[in-house]
Amino acid sequence: GRFFGNGEFDGREKIALVEVTGVIMDSGDIVRQLSQYRRDDEIKAIVLRVDSPGGGVAPSQEIYEEVLRIRAGNKKIYTSMGSMAASGGYYIACPTDRIFANPGTLTGSIGVIMAFSNASELIGKIGIKPEVIKSGKYKDIGSPTRAMTKAERKHMQKVSDDVHDQFITAVSEGRGLAMKAARKLSDGRVFTGRQAMNYKLVDDLGGLEETIQQLAQAIGIQGRPRIVVEKPESSLLEMLMGARM
Amino acid sequence: GRFFGNGEFDGREKIALVEVTGVIMDSGDIVRQLSQYRRDDEIKAIVLRVDSPGGGVAPSQEIYEEVLRIRAGNKKIYTSMGSMAASGGYYIACPTDRIFANPGTLTGSIGVIMAFSNASELIGKIGIKPEVIKSGKYKDIGSPTRAMTKAERKHMQKVSDDVHDQFITAVSEGRGLAMKAARKLSDGRVFTGRQAMNYKLVDDLGGLEETIQQLAQAIGIQGRPRIVVEKPESSLLEMLMGARM
Amino acid sequence: GRFFGNGEFDGREKIALVEVTGVIMDSGDIVRQLSQYRRDDEIKAIVLRVDSPGGGVAPSQEIYEEVLRIRAGNKKIYTSMGSMAASGGYYIACPTDRIFANPGTLTGSIGVIMAFSNASELIGKIGIKPEVIKSGKYKDIGSPTRAMTKAERKHMQKVSDDVHDQFITAVSEGRGLAMKAARKLSDGRVFTGRQAMNYKLVDDLGGLEETIQQLAQAIGIQGRPRIVVEKPESSLLEMLMGARM
Amino acid sequence: GRFFGNGEFDGREKIALVEVTGVIMDSGDIVRQLSQYRRDDEIKAIVLRVDSPGGGVAPSQEIYEEVLRIRAGNKKIYTSMGSMAASGGYYIACPTDRIFANPGTLTGSIGVIMAFSNASELIGKIGIKPEVIKSGKYKDIGSPTRAMTKAERKHMQKVSDDVHDQFITAVSEGRGLAMKAARKLSDGRVFTGRQAMNYKLVDDLGGLEETIQQLAQAIGIQGRPRIVVEKPESSLLEMLMGARM
Amino acid sequence: GRFFGNGEFDGREKIALVEVTGVIMDSGDIVRQLSQYRRDDEIKAIVLRVDSPGGGVAPSQEIYEEVLRIRAGNKKIYTSMGSMAASGGYYIACPTDRIFANPGTLTGSIGVIMAFSNASELIGKIGIKPEVIKSGKYKDIGSPTRAMTKAERKHMQKVSDDVHDQFITAVSEGRGLAMKAARKLSDGRVFTGRQAMNYKLVDDLGGLEETIQQLAQAIGIQGRPRIVVEKPESSLLEMLMGARM
Amino acid sequence: GRFFGNGEFDGREKIALVEVTGVIMDSGDIVRQLSQYRRDDEIKAIVLRVDSPGGGVAPSQEIYEEVLRIRAGNKKIYTSMGSMAASGGYYIACPTDRIFANPGTLTGSIGVIMAFSNASELIGKIGIKPEVIKSGKYKDIGSPTRAMTKAERKHMQKVSDDVHDQFITAVSEGRGLAMKAARKLSDGRVFTGRQAMNYKLVDDLGGLEETIQQLAQAIGIQGRPRIVVEKPESSLLEMLMGARM
Amino acid sequence: GRFFGNGEFDGREKIALVEVTGVIMDSGDIVRQLSQYRRDDEIKAIVLRVDSPGGGVAPSQEIYEEVLRIRAGNKKIYTSMGSMAASGGYYIACPTDRIFANPGTLTGSIGVIMAFSNASELIGKIGIKPEVIKSGKYKDIGSPTRAMTKAERKHMQKVSDDVHDQFITAVSEGRGLAMKAARKLSDGRVFTGRQAMNYKLVDDLGGLEETIQQLAQAIGIQGRPRIVVEKPESSLLEMLMGARM
Amino acid sequence: GRFFGNGEFDGREKIALVEVTGVIMDSGDIVRQLSQYRRDDEIKAIVLRVDSPGGGVAPSQEIYEEVLRIRAGNKKIYTSMGSMAASGGYYIACPTDRIFANPGTLTGSIGVIMAFSNASELIGKIGIKPEVIKSGKYKDIGSPTRAMTKAERKHMQKVSDDVHDQFITAVSEGRGLAMKAARKLSDGRVFTGRQAMNYKLVDDLGGLEETIQQLAQAIGIQGRPRIVVEKPESSLLEMLMGARM
Repeated sequence: GRFFGNGEFDGREKIALVEVTGVIMDSGDIVRQLSQYRRDDEIKAIVLRVDSPGGGVAPSQEIYEEVLRIRAGNKKIYTSMGSMAASGGYYIACPTDRIFANPGTLTGSIGVIMAFSNASELIGKIGIKPEVIKSGKYKDIGSPTRAMTKAERKHMQKVSDDVHDQFITAVSEGRGLAMKAARKLSDGRVFTGRQAMNYKLVDDLGGLEETIQQLAQAIGIQGRPRIVVEKPESSLLEMLMGARM
Repeated sequence: GRFFGNGEFDGREKIALVEVTGVIMDSGDIVRQLSQYRRDDEIKAIVLRVDSPGGGVAPSQEIYEEVLRIRAGNKKIYTSMGSMAASGGYYIACPTDRIFANPGTLTGSIGVIMAFSNASELIGKIGIKPEVIKSGKYKDIGSPTRAMTKAERKHMQKVSDDVHDQFITAVSEGRGLAMKAARKLSDGRVFTGRQAMNYKLVDDLGGLEETIQQLAQAIGIQGRPRIVVEKPESSLLEMLMGARM
Repeated sequence: GRFFGNGEFDGREKIALVEVTGVIMDSGDIVRQLSQYRRDDEIKAIVLRVDSPGGGVAPSQEIYEEVLRIRAGNKKIYTSMGSMAASGGYYIACPTDRIFANPGTLTGSIGVIMAFSNASELIGKIGIKPEVIKSGKYKDIGSPTRAMTKAERKHMQKVSDDVHDQFITAVSEGRGLAMKAARKLSDGRVFTGRQAMNYKLVDDLGGLEETIQQLAQAIGIQGRPRIVVEKPESSLLEMLMGARM
Repeated sequence: GRFFGNGEFDGREKIALVEVTGVIMDSGDIVRQLSQYRRDDEIKAIVLRVDSPGGGVAPSQEIYEEVLRIRAGNKKIYTSMGSMAASGGYYIACPTDRIFANPGTLTGSIGVIMAFSNASELIGKIGIKPEVIKSGKYKDIGSPTRAMTKAERKHMQKVSDDVHDQFITAVSEGRGLAMKAARKLSDGRVFTGRQAMNYKLVDDLGGLEETIQQLAQAIGIQGRPRIVVEKPESSLLEMLMGARM
Repeated sequence: GRFFGNGEFDGREKIALVEVTGVIMDSGDIVRQLSQYRRDDEIKAIVLRVDSPGGGVAPSQEIYEEVLRIRAGNKKIYTSMGSMAASGGYYIACPTDRIFANPGTLTGSIGVIMAFSNASELIGKIGIKPEVIKSGKYKDIGSPTRAMTKAERKHMQKVSDDVHDQFITAVSEGRGLAMKAARKLSDGRVFTGRQAMNYKLVDDLGGLEETIQQLAQAIGIQGRPRIVVEKPESSLLEMLMGARM
Repeated sequence: GRFFGNGEFDGREKIALVEVTGVIMDSGDIVRQLSQYRRDDEIKAIVLRVDSPGGGVAPSQEIYEEVLRIRAGNKKIYTSMGSMAASGGYYIACPTDRIFANPGTLTGSIGVIMAFSNASELIGKIGIKPEVIKSGKYKDIGSPTRAMTKAERKHMQKVSDDVHDQFITAVSEGRGLAMKAARKLSDGRVFTGRQAMNYKLVDDLGGLEETIQQLAQAIGIQGRPRIVVEKPESSLLEMLMGARM
Repeated sequence: GRFFGNGEFDGREKIALVEVTGVIMDSGDIVRQLSQYRRDDEIKAIVLRVDSPGGGVAPSQEIYEEVLRIRAGNKKIYTSMGSMAASGGYYIACPTDRIFANPGTLTGSIGVIMAFSNASELIGKIGIKPEVIKSGKYKDIGSPTRAMTKAERKHMQKVSDDVHDQFITAVSEGRGLAMKAARKLSDGRVFTGRQAMNYKLVDDLGGLEETIQQLAQAIGIQGRPRIVVEKPESSLLEMLMGARM
Repeated sequence: GRFFGNGEFDGREKIALVEVTGVIMDSGDIVRQLSQYRRDDEIKAIVLRVDSPGGGVAPSQEIYEEVLRIRAGNKKIYTSMGSMAASGGYYIACPTDRIFANPGTLTGSIGVIMAFSNASELIGKIGIKPEVIKSGKYKDIGSPTRAMTKAERKHMQKVSDDVHDQFITAVSEGRGLAMKAARKLSDGRVFTGRQAMNYKLVDDLGGLEETIQQLAQAIGIQGRPRIVVEKPESSLLEMLMGARM
């Protein structure tokens, strides 16, 4: 979705485009871009393009906080959703001023999940007996070599619920929904963009182009705005394997 | 199917050729080409050459919308179908002015499908017991470690039907068919080009050459038109592996 | 089979040699060559050398049509069959003026086939239950996770028969056979070159050299004609792996 | 999380950022950085950014001791936790002046574990009989070819408990908790950042940016401090595979 | 077997050496060499060195025909057999003027074979049911998913016998044997060189050197003849892997 | 653990640092360093940094002997243990003047082990019968194709005990322990650094920095000593894979 | 075994060393060397160094014949056997003037073997039924899909015996043994060099050096002879992988 | 073990160091070094450093003989054993003037072994029936497809015993032991260096350094001798993979 050259529209007013693609593992690069555009007076507004199934909680939170700082600085930021903007991909979108989705975008999936496997039966069948020496009763919590105890399961559920609660709060505050309404939608379901709009998780239907035009209009830019976008950093290997020339 | 040099026919009137080959994953590059030719006054008309089994919904929709913008600008765009133009490959073709197919082209396949696997029996046989900690009842929808519940199945069917409805609407509007007729053909069946013409999903039988000649004639070009086509971008690796020299 | 240098016979009359080798996937390159030689007045006639087990229907049809355009322009085109010229490899040969085969060439195999696999039993044995959400009754036609229904089988047979009918018509028209006779030979059987000649699917026995000499004689060339042939395009990798030096 | 150029903020007061990422295998590089910043008068304070599931005991202890030397020298050092700062990752954080975590950070996991496998049954099934010649009764302790004896298990538990005791003492002393309180939390449980704050294992909630701002304020820096961070050393291969350009 | 430099014997009379090594897939290169030496007046005679287990029928026939053209031009051509000259390797040798074999050479194997596999039982065991849609009763002849029918087997036997008959005729004509005698030896048996001489399939025992000396003597060359041989073409990869330096 | 530049402390008194990392396979490089520093008058003392699980007996003995030569020359040598200094890693440490360990270091494991596998049952199950022709009754001692005889086992135990006895003697002499006491600790047990100090196998707790400071003080160096350390030799591949830049 | 530089002994009388190493596949290179040294008057005698388990019959015969030509020209040729000189490796040695072996060399193995596998049972178990169409009753002799018939076995035994007879004759003539004696030793047994000497298959015991000294003495060379040896040709890859520098 | 630079000790008297490392496959390189130092008057004596489990019989014999030539020339040669000097590694050491071993060196293993596998049961289970055509009753001796006959076993035992006898003779002559004593120790047992000294298979205990000092003293060198050692030849690949820089 990146087809704007830096030099293509010199002299016009600038909107920055920040792309979040794939699983969100590390917030560093996204936060750096957002923080930079926040402090750059030449950037009049920001589009956050999200095409991600989600990822880690903490990095999503660090991006979320940076979006809040942008809004605190009175710079507008809109989200444009691509094929998918689910879970953590929705988390980072919800504090933006306005969210655009394609009607066929997959979004939602608001929830928390931790998956473990108890392979003790398999290990027994193979003929291996694990011998664990531990100090700290819960040190081998989630170990694949035995079943989880009730106490352990209860503890991990509390950890999960605590994070879920943080997520629902973010949706509630970001989208201006009552906690009760936010909680109802935060049961992990996926939605099409069109369905999400009905649930007020999304504001408008439309692609990236539409998002840009609406944002430009909202901040009073005349004609086509100049779009600033970073060339994605790529390793030598990526250049060899997939980079376009 | 690309055998037109940029410089081969200088001085004559230009028709642009945009190729959509393989699975449609990302709309960026196709939208960029279409958008560019739309705004370029030297381009008199556009041929969309499709050889694709389909792909993602959202990218197809972004291409679809760009085709609509071209038609809104009163520039003609024809489709030429290669070996296959099914599902999303048909989606993007249907708003064009006129569709040409070879008699043996495979097209149609209008529908939506989401495939999950319940491997719980396999996992049990291997001797693994999944332990899932989740917050959000539907967070593990489609999980391979258990059967889908009725409620989940119902929810996912609604998601699928919503996208299907978007597809049928696109066919109806693009091909000028009543919703009822469009819905009848949108049951996922594949057709030969010849069959598709009988169902009015296609306008004419013929190859790329025929498409170009008809388009040239329709916009009043005398003699053979000059064809503009982008060299496909290729990575270094593709250059090493497959690029022709 | 390519042993003619471009510069080897300067000053003599030219015959072009177009080679179709391996599975026919994409018609682009072959059509480009044929189209170019058709419009080139220095080329007096064309030899189509076929060594292929067939391939896609649509590309064969695009080549077939280009051969028809050559004949419409009154330029002679002969076929020389190598080890194999079956199915689509025969399809493209049949509209040429004259077909030469080695006595041991394998040809024929006129028919259409689509192969699916119902692996539901296997999947069940492994312990996986497919969960398919679909919109469009026939969207998962040919799916390996279940048996094909009668209605689906009937539909696909109609698709196959439609293409077969296109093939038989091509043989009938190309070889000047009555539809009934063409249909009788189009039951998928393979033939040796010698057998094919008895069935009038082939005109003469002989290798490439023989074909060239006969064609030269037919168009009144004195002495040995000059042969024009394109060096096959090769990628860097092919150059590394197999190119001859 | 590294988005500070060395030259970006020249002339302002400096805070050093030391990153501990991934499994802690070797303390050399971290100790070198800390030791260098400790002796460098231009560095006014240090942020230890931890994103690690833990690792070896001895390297964690060497880092721990270096942090103590920093505090002995009256230079402030704060911890900022990323996605995870558990086990050894918490060990090195606990002697710092102040610990910041994201609410969704995973931390805790204070305990010791040693895992062995008794594969004698498997080996027997395969049909192999181990023949061990040893001098020193316990030389093959933890051997996968036989069960661990009671005496061996008792010995290894003493080894584990001794290390656990060292860990609890570090938490107690680093966080100013009574040994009893520290021991209670050191049962191997994981906590979210928010939970950990309730247990006084963490001082504040917030990301890296928040940590820096609080530290700057604590040592009386006016405006945004200048951040000093080492470019991570990377091998040629890492440059090829993953380095950003 | 190539140990003659082009420049090693300048000024003496020339004999050309054409090598056929490995499986005969494509006749192009061999025919090109033979054809060139046939038309080159400086070449007084030709040695065909064969070290091949055979290969394709059609390429063998194209080489066979080129040998006939050489003999028609009254230039002598002798065969020298290496380790093996069987099936197609014998086919191309039989029209030469004289055949030399080592006593331990393996030759003969005159016959035709086509091997198919009926894997329907295997496929059934795995749990797969093939679903074939075909137009043309014999289109899936030789399919591994079912048994061959009697009619199919009869048809394929006719194809095989037709090619076999072409082979026997070649032996009969090439070696001057009555059809009946040729047919008797053409039952697929392999022979040593010495046995083959008894059956008149070979004329003399001896290696390459012997062949050259006999040929030189037969055409009246005094002293050691000058041998002309093409350096085998090799790809860059072959140069890297196996070329001698 | 190497963070001392050669030029970092010019003019101050020198202490050499010799690192033994990983499995001890070949003594050559370590002996070379020690021998060189022994004969170099500018080196006032040596630190042996050990991070190794042990390795071969003979190379450990060659290093052991070189340490003895250093002490014979009245130059002090201290050991600093990293994560692990067990078995052969302890062997080489024990003759040094003083041993420092981290409290969590793993050390001890004094003993000898030789492991064989009798896979005759497996081989029989597979269906293979070994046929061994040997001259020399014990030539196939330890063979995986049969059980070890009593006589063989007794012989190998004598070999093992002989080496163990050499090890215990080394501990006794190196650490100044009575043979009886040394033998008691040499039963293969592992110890934490703290435990080992109680057993007098280690003299002090502390990391590398502590070791250096104590050694400097012991030989009367004022202020921070200058540390000399060799850059580890690395192959081109290691440079590509892991070398730091 | 090659440790003679071309220029090491200039001015002295020359003995050529020809090395036959590994499986004998192609005689070309060895024959070329022998033939060249035969015709080179500066070469006074030749040593054939053999370190080979044998190989193909025909290439061994071509080398054998070249050795006979050397002897016919009254130039002496001695064999020096390395680790192994068995089967074809002995074949080429036996016509030389004198054979030297190390006492522990493995030689003999005079015989012929052809190994086939009847995998019909395996194929049946897998669930595959081979369908063979053949013309020529013996065309699929040795096929792995069925048992060999009595007639086939008898035919192949005749082929084998014919080659064996050629081998025995070569031993008899080369070593001056009566056919009966040669036949007795040609039962496939391997011998040590020392045993072979007792059977008169070898003349002397000694290594390469000994062979050279004896040959030099036999042809009356004073002092150490100059040894001429070809640098083995190596491909680029071999240079990269194993060539010594 | 190589830590002597060629230029490190210029002007002093020279001792050559020849290293035998790993499995002894080819004697060429070792013999070349020994032979060269034998004929070089500047070399006063030689140390043979052995770190090898043995290898081929014939190459060991060629090295053995070269050692005898050195002693015949009255130049002293001592052996220094590394981690292992067993079987062929002992064979080459035994004719040297004096053997030094570390106390923990593994040596001995004097014997001969040939291992075959009878996999006929496995092959039968798989469902394959071998069909062997052979001429020469013993041609398939040791074949994995059948059991070895009594006669074959007896023949192979004679081959093995003959080589063993050669080995024992070498030990007896090299170490000055009576044949009976040598035979008693040549039963395949391994020994530690210390045990071997008791059995008179080794003369002294000590490492490489000790060996050199003793040798220097024995030939009357004053001070430290100059050591000459060849840089091991390494291929380009070895340089890339493992060579030290």
